[in-house]
Amino acid sequence: MNGAQAVVRTLADCGVTACFANPGTSEMHFVAALDTVPQMRGVLCLFEGVATGAADGYGRMTGQPAAALLHLGPGLANGLANLHNARRARSPLLAIVGDHATYHKRFDAPLESDIDALAGTVSGWVRRSARSADAAADAAEAVAAALTPPGQIATLILPADVTWSDGAEPAAPVAARPAAPIPDELISRATGALRGLGTALHGGESCVILLGGTGLRRPALEAASRIAQATGARLLAETFPARHERGAGIPAVDRLAYLVEFAAAQLAGTRHLILAGASAPVSFFAYPGKPSTPLPVDCQVHVLAEGGDDVPGALAVLADRVAPSATPTAQQPGQPDLGGLPDGELTGETAAAVIGALLPEGAIICDEANTSGLWLPAATAGAPPHDWLSLTGGAIGQGLPLATGAALACPGRPVLALEADGSAMYTASALWTHAREQLDITTVIFSNHSYAILNMELERTGAAVTGTTARDLLDLSRPSIDFTALAAGMGVPASRAVTTSEFATQLQRALAEPGPHLIEAVIPPIS
Amino acid sequence: MNGAQAVVRTLADCGVTACFANPGTSEMHFVAALDTVPQMRGVLCLFEGVATGAADGYGRMTGQPAAALLHLGPGLANGLANLHNARRARSPLLAIVGDHATYHKRFDAPLESDIDALAGTVSGWVRRSARSADAAADAAEAVAAALTPPGQIATLILPADVTWSDGAEPAAPVAARPAAPIPDELISRATGALRGLGTALHGGESCVILLGGTGLRRPALEAASRIAQATGARLLAETFPARHERGAGIPAVDRLAYLVEFAAAQLAGTRHLILAGASAPVSFFAYPGKPSTPLPVDCQVHVLAEGGDDVPGALAVLADRVAPSATPTAQQPGQPDLGGLPDGELTGETAAAVIGALLPEGAIICDEANTSGLWLPAATAGAPPHDWLSLTGGAIGQGLPLATGAALACPGRPVLALEADGSAMYTASALWTHAREQLDITTVIFSNHSYAILNMELERTGAAVTGTTARDLLDLSRPSIDFTALAAGMGVPASRAVTTSEFATQLQRALAEPGPHLIEAVIPPIS
Repeated sequence: MNGAQAVVRTLADCGVTACFANPGTSEMHFVAALDTVPQMRGVLCLFEGVATGAADGYGRMTGQPAAALLHLGPGLANGLANLHNARRARSPLLAIVGDHATYHKRFDAPLESDIDALAGTVSGWVRRSARSADAAADAAEAVAAALTPPGQIATLILPADVTWSDGAEPAAPVAARPAAPIPDELISRATGALRGLGTALHGGESCVILLGGTGLRRPALEAASRIAQATGARLLAETFPARHERGAGIPAVDRLAYLVEFAAAQLAGTRHLILAGASAPVSFFAYPGKPSTPLPVDCQVHVLAEGGDDVPGALAVLADRVAPSATPTAQQPGQPDLGGLPDGELTGETAAAVIGALLPEGAIICDEANTSGLWLPAATAGAPPHDWLSLTGGAIGQGLPLATGAALACPGRPVLALEADGSAMYTASALWTHAREQLDITTVIFSNHSYAILNMELERTGAAVTGTTARDLLDLSRPSIDFTALAAGMGVPASRAVTTSEFATQLQRALAEPGPHLIEAVIPPIS
Repeated sequence: MNGAQAVVRTLADCGVTACFANPGTSEMHFVAALDTVPQMRGVLCLFEGVATGAADGYGRMTGQPAAALLHLGPGLANGLANLHNARRARSPLLAIVGDHATYHKRFDAPLESDIDALAGTVSGWVRRSARSADAAADAAEAVAAALTPPGQIATLILPADVTWSDGAEPAAPVAARPAAPIPDELISRATGALRGLGTALHGGESCVILLGGTGLRRPALEAASRIAQATGARLLAETFPARHERGAGIPAVDRLAYLVEFAAAQLAGTRHLILAGASAPVSFFAYPGKPSTPLPVDCQVHVLAEGGDDVPGALAVLADRVAPSATPTAQQPGQPDLGGLPDGELTGETAAAVIGALLPEGAIICDEANTSGLWLPAATAGAPPHDWLSLTGGAIGQGLPLATGAALACPGRPVLALEADGSAMYTASALWTHAREQLDITTVIFSNHSYAILNMELERTGAAVTGTTARDLLDLSRPSIDFTALAAGMGVPASRAVTTSEFATQLQRALAEPGPHLIEAVIPPIS
């Protein structure tokens, strides 16, 4: 068989069975090889940023890497922003980049560029297969690399002649490196910080456990809740979790605020911060006269477990040590009462209440609502159990692709993509893939006709606005974008809601019907 | 004044007066500074690939760099594919990338990434301003670097605190390095190759002059035409010129074919190839059993002038030496007769005839029609003088952005964006900027519901297709994309043509009315 056939066979044997693709000539043998391995599902995306974002969503929901098939350097470049988000999400992801034939590189053909340099900026592992006979083994190692706990991007560069040359054979799967055990020293340090709290409940030192990564899945949350019960430590979640299991029956954890001054208020008085899968908190941006971190100056930071560690295991050990008899506190069920909502102009707040009231069990929420999503966490806290996937790396254009991958990964579960209008325009062609694959995704576009977050940031950075050019660059109202037309143009049934009751009716219908839907929720910008 | 104000003032003083922007928080002071310099026009794009492609189009038509304002590493990443095309076009272009404040970098905030590595893959010049007091001088040097003949990408990275800190002053413009004079040795070599043709007209050695870059502007074409008249040398144009002046009254030059076997046929028997602003020809891709270059093995390649040289000057000197008394041969006027076209199903061929018949004088054509554009060069050869801008680097998604910049640069000239459907979906949000700025752009979408070129390439690469997955990954028909809905959703009036006469009527109307229009030209794939 040729190199491409051996690679695709090997990927399937390694558990990689989804390939989000936007191929070109240099990937034609890889594309043809997909037909030789029925376990491998090829999913066409109309832009590489959709393919990489979909692979991220798939990885977050399954823990297994999907492949993103990309066309040389420019294809990788188009996929980089969502690879950046995937890197920040620590998702397992396999980027396969086709390249010119080995002997053709020296001719500097028009599509030639420095693929390796681009790949290096987002990947934990990069390899360029040199020979057809090596390609399958390289692919097996790439999958193992992608699965390095908790997950990372592995990039395999496949020159065209490596894929088309014969003499290749499939390779056996390679075992991924397991997570390293947590050093007892780290457990002890955290224990010490928590024991200092022996008096905390009575006015002693304040301790916060900041949860992130796999620390936001149910088993870890239950261990953390036991610790909090027994010690008085407070729990917080990182600001933008890759995947947060939440809802009724699961211990509730507030997220650290996006704005550094609000985060500082949440952390005021904290003397010990224990990191469990999260990084030390940092302001998303710097601002004149504002600190880079919300931590109090006298706060000690203790690393219990880093993102790549066995975070649930570390929390379980710690819970057994400091809270052997405590039980977790589960979130009580409770959803906004749809009947109690005042009808009238739809707002971010009433939209959140409708979503909270209607959220089905097992929903997967892909949240890129930005400023319009302010009210969502509270409105959905007591909803049936669901997963919340955030924009991890700040590179907008992630939500619709992420939903694509999550829906492919979990065919039985409803997916809700909550999108800001400005962000949606980055990768709107994901809607076409929603339609093509008939994915059960309900997209809500929060249409406030503005980069609202930037109007806020313009003030916060202290930039002096003296004319209309600056404001114009943050304005999406001229012309206003008709998202129902865009959706219909790509085969997704769509409607527009301007009142709360319209939105409720439309969301109910979209959730009840299979397949993709889009609702343009027209709301005012936050003021 | 602060660093941002000094930079924007300096850019305007250096002749940079257009800024295609998709800013974020780290660029807010730069955005605010735009209001302090009325000469600077800020143009909002909804995706960075639109901003960079627009800056490319602007640079191709004016010879002056426009700025593309990008948001940290992910913003640059989204703009990279069109920067790749701009690098291949040798366009002058200034990429301004905002970054975190200098002191904030160490905190590894979510948007942190290796901007410098990304910038290095496309830029001829990269600098990171370290201090507010240096930023304006850095900007002046960046503009000079962008103008290094014939043009290149200069990337200036501006940390947020460099832009917001006071104590900056505007800097004086820096003179760009002029093109180096052509060494007389190169003129002599080319002369020797051409003089060997003293007998060529009588069956001697065959010589081709391959024109590229500024060798495809009218003065260079006229010098080349004189040389061809006097010596019997043949003229060819590079396959994908950045800007080709052509039409009635201008010497006509056929382009070297895209497919290597066709290019080899064009070059068969050539013993001397003189390069005038073009690179040595190379196959766009490698294919099993096909050569990487179309050149005959016994062909000698002579470099007269490289892309960065004074190509028109070199051709003029050469013409004076070998063709002192020759006159150029101008293309005769002649356009397809609209009345003589058979009505019926629109095809790529009849669409080209309609475009050739209606092309207005001074039109700027942004050609990303790919396989659907096969008939365009012949159908437009005798049209009134116009500029033809090609997809230079093979990274699709260039046409609509390129048209944006060309229209901004040349407000009095009609712009025709000829787009393949697959390529259009990469950066379709450019249509919104067409509407917002009311640009005089007529977009024709050749809608064949297929990545037609890849169906052809699938055969040519010899990939064995054994099932439906491979073909499905090249198919855009399920669902079919309604480009009239997409255009209307972004504020561009649109219509659909399925017959030749419909297309003619719609194109006539679109060209007659100011402002943007879109025509979805439904055609069958080439077979």
